[in-house]
Amino acid sequence: MPSSHLSKLYRNDYGLLTDLYQLTMAYGYWRAGMHQRKTVFHLFYRRAPFGGHYAIAAGLELAIDYIQRLKFSVEDIQYLGSLTGSDDKPLFNESFLNYLQRLKFTGSIYAVPEGSVVLPHEPILRIEAPLVEAQLIETALLTLINFSTLIATKASRVVAAAGEDEVLEFGLRRAQGIDGALTASRSAYLGGCHATSNLWAGRYYGIPVRGTHAHAWVMAFEDEISAFREYAAALPNNCVFLVDTYDTLKGVENAIQVGYELRAQGKKLLGIRLDSGDLAELSRKARQMLDEAGFEDADIVASDDLDEHRIRELKAAGAKVAVWGVGTRLVTGHDQSALGGVYKMAAIQDETGAWEYRVKLSELAAKTSIPGALQVRRYQRTDGNPTAHVLYNSWDEESPLGLIPWGESEPIQPAGESFCDLLQLIVKNGELVYNFPSLNQARAYCQTERARWEQTDWQTFRAGLSLQLHSLRQRLTTPHRTKNQH
Amino acid sequence: MPSSHLSKLYRNDYGLLTDLYQLTMAYGYWRAGMHQRKTVFHLFYRRAPFGGHYAIAAGLELAIDYIQRLKFSVEDIQYLGSLTGSDDKPLFNESFLNYLQRLKFTGSIYAVPEGSVVLPHEPILRIEAPLVEAQLIETALLTLINFSTLIATKASRVVAAAGEDEVLEFGLRRAQGIDGALTASRSAYLGGCHATSNLWAGRYYGIPVRGTHAHAWVMAFEDEISAFREYAAALPNNCVFLVDTYDTLKGVENAIQVGYELRAQGKKLLGIRLDSGDLAELSRKARQMLDEAGFEDADIVASDDLDEHRIRELKAAGAKVAVWGVGTRLVTGHDQSALGGVYKMAAIQDETGAWEYRVKLSELAAKTSIPGALQVRRYQRTDGNPTAHVLYNSWDEESPLGLIPWGESEPIQPAGESFCDLLQLIVKNGELVYNFPSLNQARAYCQTERARWEQTDWQTFRAGLSLQLHSLRQRLTTPHRTKNQH
Repeated sequence: MPSSHLSKLYRNDYGLLTDLYQLTMAYGYWRAGMHQRKTVFHLFYRRAPFGGHYAIAAGLELAIDYIQRLKFSVEDIQYLGSLTGSDDKPLFNESFLNYLQRLKFTGSIYAVPEGSVVLPHEPILRIEAPLVEAQLIETALLTLINFSTLIATKASRVVAAAGEDEVLEFGLRRAQGIDGALTASRSAYLGGCHATSNLWAGRYYGIPVRGTHAHAWVMAFEDEISAFREYAAALPNNCVFLVDTYDTLKGVENAIQVGYELRAQGKKLLGIRLDSGDLAELSRKARQMLDEAGFEDADIVASDDLDEHRIRELKAAGAKVAVWGVGTRLVTGHDQSALGGVYKMAAIQDETGAWEYRVKLSELAAKTSIPGALQVRRYQRTDGNPTAHVLYNSWDEESPLGLIPWGESEPIQPAGESFCDLLQLIVKNGELVYNFPSLNQARAYCQTERARWEQTDWQTFRAGLSLQLHSLRQRLTTPHRTKNQH
Repeated sequence: MPSSHLSKLYRNDYGLLTDLYQLTMAYGYWRAGMHQRKTVFHLFYRRAPFGGHYAIAAGLELAIDYIQRLKFSVEDIQYLGSLTGSDDKPLFNESFLNYLQRLKFTGSIYAVPEGSVVLPHEPILRIEAPLVEAQLIETALLTLINFSTLIATKASRVVAAAGEDEVLEFGLRRAQGIDGALTASRSAYLGGCHATSNLWAGRYYGIPVRGTHAHAWVMAFEDEISAFREYAAALPNNCVFLVDTYDTLKGVENAIQVGYELRAQGKKLLGIRLDSGDLAELSRKARQMLDEAGFEDADIVASDDLDEHRIRELKAAGAKVAVWGVGTRLVTGHDQSALGGVYKMAAIQDETGAWEYRVKLSELAAKTSIPGALQVRRYQRTDGNPTAHVLYNSWDEESPLGLIPWGESEPIQPAGESFCDLLQLIVKNGELVYNFPSLNQARAYCQTERARWEQTDWQTFRAGLSLQLHSLRQRLTTPHRTKNQH
């Protein structure tokens, strides 16, 4: 493993990074002698975020880092020993707590690489592990994958809206906690952003950092032009002036004046930043002023509660912006603040070691879970453009025959000249067997993915269950319900 | 200081927990010889979150913890030394980096206690510190206060909707990162929630933890009643059965059956949990079934994308729920994913040490900042019910005379029999001089505050600037703009 993300930041063991009910269930399984039964769980989401078609998978490296460091410290165990139930007696007995202290993850994990396009109902992770282990890790896996995937997806949308322009992530001050920010910076970069303002993210993840000055800089001086001059004197190689502290177009004039002075010294005005007002109109005027003054190279940076929608609007309104600084609405998701990822059991061994499939029923058919040990087969044209995704049970089918698209009942043959399976083996019997790409490699892979899917014709693209998996799910749905209505 | 929150969790020094531009500005101030000039900054928000009237201040203890641990490590300094500008030369020189490595916070901080009701434009924190220090801490203070305040406010709304019922915070799996969850658990408890599912929050903040089992528990067994029985065998003092894995009302029957069996052993069915479907109707039916079976004491717990709006709807629809499990929509803010807190300079010393006030202008009058060293005076009736908030300049006025309410132009005399000033001295010249309440004490204070403000008549309540501060702001607004239009 090239680096450990969580351990760079956190002091703690991660055993307690979970919900209490995972521990009470673990205790129950252990008491019932079921804790070593092998199980299969899938982590997936049901509805694509932000009204889009897909999500960008992210957070795998953080999740695996967590798995490898899953451990209960002596103090954790003491804390668990102090918890009591309704009779004021301990919830857990000592022998279970001793067992917990020795617990490690011994299972296997399959996952799609970070930066992959994943569709609703498709596993981002598949866990094959003893029941107690698969159960204990649910909460942390969901936290780490849900949030990273949400923000990588949001970033990919913002970057798509910005087209050829640069996108800088400026969200630290409005993020949800310290690693809310740090994880958002990582995911935003993975999803296609070009840099961050966050120095922790720069140092710990190697993400390029950008930033020049705030309104306070201007307010610290007697007037704006003195502020720009002093900035240019100190940081002649980082001159992007924020021009809207007092009067925006006057600010552009002042920036241009200091631009001349920089030029006379062989230095360069890199650009100006607009942070308020009518960004479309102000940027057009500022562009014209800069061009007329011979600063065609100087970029206009815009910020001010931006997101993919505002960027599209501003571009449609003729904004002359080359760099978009996007903060709050990127790092918190804004219009969707959580990915509704879930973690569902799909199979479990019985007491003889024989496998049984499982589904969680729901009155909403779409919320009924999918049994099996799932793999996703992607069919694509020779240019790499995806034509279909077939979810199939890798235990039953080497090569899935037929696809029943979501919401349809007749099988079709997926179009496309070639196919590949998306889930890869990451951890095998507790050992990491996957070479994580660098963050830059994952980002490049994400760009490839986004380019492939930009061409998708959603009228003809089809996703759903393989014929055989569809039958298995149908078969399990009714009898299981009946069986439980004893 | 009773405990250090961040250092319990994070390994790192906090110097780099900021935006790059804070460092480039710090460098500029230092180069210009201005870094030791004293300044005043305020941290405040402009619009009350969630469409309410106010916010619940939170995060102070985390923010002060950060301030006390503000430090650049050798590795941080090396990282900063590696950053380059447009000419590929370093951004910072060595002598500045040496200076940074010795930097500590030496200023003073005033703040409202955690759990206080704060109104728009009122400082949550006031910083009086050398320019370079006040500037460097901006980003982290905003992150820590913005998010904590957002979630404490959301929690207070959820708890208000729940009335006498209990509210459990279940958000870890959908939170924005690990301490997105942890900070949310802390803020949710402070804002009035009764417990959390998050064991880290339980261990590190001493918050009561709650939880029983998930659908996976039921799915791990051959049928639901076996699952309940095994749970009761292992954890007879923690029996709240989740009844909707297959068929909810059948689940209630199974819970009742195991309730009888528990009772026969002198144990107790604590309740059932509903996690899907029509919660109003199902809870009414379940309540009736439990009552008829003699389990009047057993509580009905409800969960499923709840928030203050859903809880009010369900109560209006006659739901018989005693405990509300609230997750995603509480810990992420949901309808508002960030508090738009800002940090604005209000005064700075000139080169002779004389103070000058500062305002940041804006085309929107409400976004023009407020000069001075601000204090908030609360007027209240003898029953503690607030009648007015007057924002005044503590340097100019010992006792503010007259209040110009927001949006009005004529001064009034605030009603109310007594008054108190809300901002307290927390850090004096770098030294902590405030005794932090325990989290339980802060939570109790928040309950007192919420009770006071529940009675508020918003038709007669008034908030705004003191007459003198209003004049100061008016005076500064025009000339300053002019001065900068040279």
